[in-house]
Amino acid sequence: MTHTVLSSATKEVVIGFDKPFVMIGERINPTGRKLLAAEMKAGDFSRVEADALAQVAAGAHMLDINAGIPLADEPALLAQAIKLVQSVTDVPLSIDSSIIEALEAGISVYEGKPLVNSVTGEEEVMERVLPFVAKHGAAVVAVSNDDTGISEDPNVRFEVAKRIIQRANDHGIPTCDVVVDPLVMPIGAMATAGQQVFTLVARLRDELGVNTTCGASNVSFGLPNRHNITGSFLSMAIGAGMTSAIMNPLHSEAKTAVMAADVLMGTDANCAAWISEYRDPNAAVGGGRARGGRRRKRE
Amino acid sequence: MTHTVLSSATKEVVIGFDKPFVMIGERINPTGRKLLAAEMKAGDFSRVEADALAQVAAGAHMLDINAGIPLADEPALLAQAIKLVQSVTDVPLSIDSSIIEALEAGISVYEGKPLVNSVTGEEEVMERVLPFVAKHGAAVVAVSNDDTGISEDPNVRFEVAKRIIQRANDHGIPTCDVVVDPLVMPIGAMATAGQQVFTLVARLRDELGVNTTCGASNVSFGLPNRHNITGSFLSMAIGAGMTSAIMNPLHSEAKTAVMAADVLMGTDANCAAWISEYRDPNAAVGGGRARGGRRRKRE
Repeated sequence: MTHTVLSSATKEVVIGFDKPFVMIGERINPTGRKLLAAEMKAGDFSRVEADALAQVAAGAHMLDINAGIPLADEPALLAQAIKLVQSVTDVPLSIDSSIIEALEAGISVYEGKPLVNSVTGEEEVMERVLPFVAKHGAAVVAVSNDDTGISEDPNVRFEVAKRIIQRANDHGIPTCDVVVDPLVMPIGAMATAGQQVFTLVARLRDELGVNTTCGASNVSFGLPNRHNITGSFLSMAIGAGMTSAIMNPLHSEAKTAVMAADVLMGTDANCAAWISEYRDPNAAVGGGRARGGRRRKRE
Repeated sequence: MTHTVLSSATKEVVIGFDKPFVMIGERINPTGRKLLAAEMKAGDFSRVEADALAQVAAGAHMLDINAGIPLADEPALLAQAIKLVQSVTDVPLSIDSSIIEALEAGISVYEGKPLVNSVTGEEEVMERVLPFVAKHGAAVVAVSNDDTGISEDPNVRFEVAKRIIQRANDHGIPTCDVVVDPLVMPIGAMATAGQQVFTLVARLRDELGVNTTCGASNVSFGLPNRHNITGSFLSMAIGAGMTSAIMNPLHSEAKTAVMAADVLMGTDANCAAWISEYRDPNAAVGGGRARGGRRRKRE
């Protein structure tokens, strides 16, 4: 059974088919968040800290950290954000950038074993990213596009993923430390986007036994009531074999869908996490009343 | 592409892999509903009528009709309920009883092509139910248990389903008129219940190309926040290939999960049903304001 082990200085998280789905908080990302971008650029990381704490409180097992701000010193900002987040939370981090120098700056200050997000199947990117992932003993997200772009054919994407894994192995990175991102497109723009992902994830599980992740929110871009689309997508992707996602645990529709899928896949033993999250505090032997010392309203 | 066509006197519904998922309303069933049972037994069908209308208004494409009341004349009650429901709605019906005489009484008064719910793989049941299903040109639900009981092994259930389909064919019923019920157990009692269903449904789709249905609510029996478990189960089952379910469309969690899964499977063309259900009535070209004649609050 493939286990991808990530860690902070004090805490381990395991991604695997026999484990609860790993929710990686997506919020610390200035893309589309003008205020956060301006603050980070000006050296104000108070919102980064607040977002880190809020996501962990909401159940995030890991946090994705991105500092992609135009015309800013991204390597320095990313390193600073990582140091700050590691000082206020103990969850392992995903170091997220499209700029290789930023990934290197992030990994050099990181305490523990991070997830490097990401490497693609592009020749130059593989040859620049994989050596320092190997050197630091990190895990890496493999995005299934290459020099020819993003194929709409899940079988082509499967071959790209396979090629990245082989190259990672050549650099001394074991397969369990490669987490494949099948690339999730907005379903409103491409009706086959869901089935492409489900097909690819099932092949990656059945034929290569690798863990997978994705940017889940992208699937619902542009649609009304989008968090319920994201939620159902997550449940269905988990059913197909997906084992982690970069998502927003503060959106209850998405979080609930992940927790329900854990129950239905048998990875939430005795439904303990579900019952603890949703039980009626007034029910017999309920913990809420005893802990709170007061009768709470029936939910 | 397998199409199971059901009809009332005036309306057709098609169950198929390339069609939106068919929601069969579960409410008209006195099991566990003491008041409904007492009223039906006393000849008061007002609640049956109200439940029929409410479920169709909530989006049910079909309705399941069950009159299983202890010590009552079930064949007569079932026939009466079917006649009443057919007089107030135009959706096709599923005629639901474990008593073969009741199924026969129901089918004899039904206008159109019903779904007969159900036949099992038990010798005697097959030989009594399949002839009148064939005679009336109806479709039938095949429940995957036999004289040896309900197996926990999805591969055994697959073989039972295959045997029922073959026997139906022997009686002149085409495979497209057999809808397999993989049998859904409560996940709180059996941690493998979800994966059993997903595995079996995928095999039934990939190897036999048959449509499937189930009693979806059963999966969440006994758990808190159960409608979200049912909803995620429905999304995941649709991802695995399930094409209809007996469920409660009045539970928004379940209905939304089905509609989102239709979007994600590409069977809700242009996301039209989703957008129509959930769009912001204040958005540009929104129908809500024009119809309502007043500005509504943003959702």
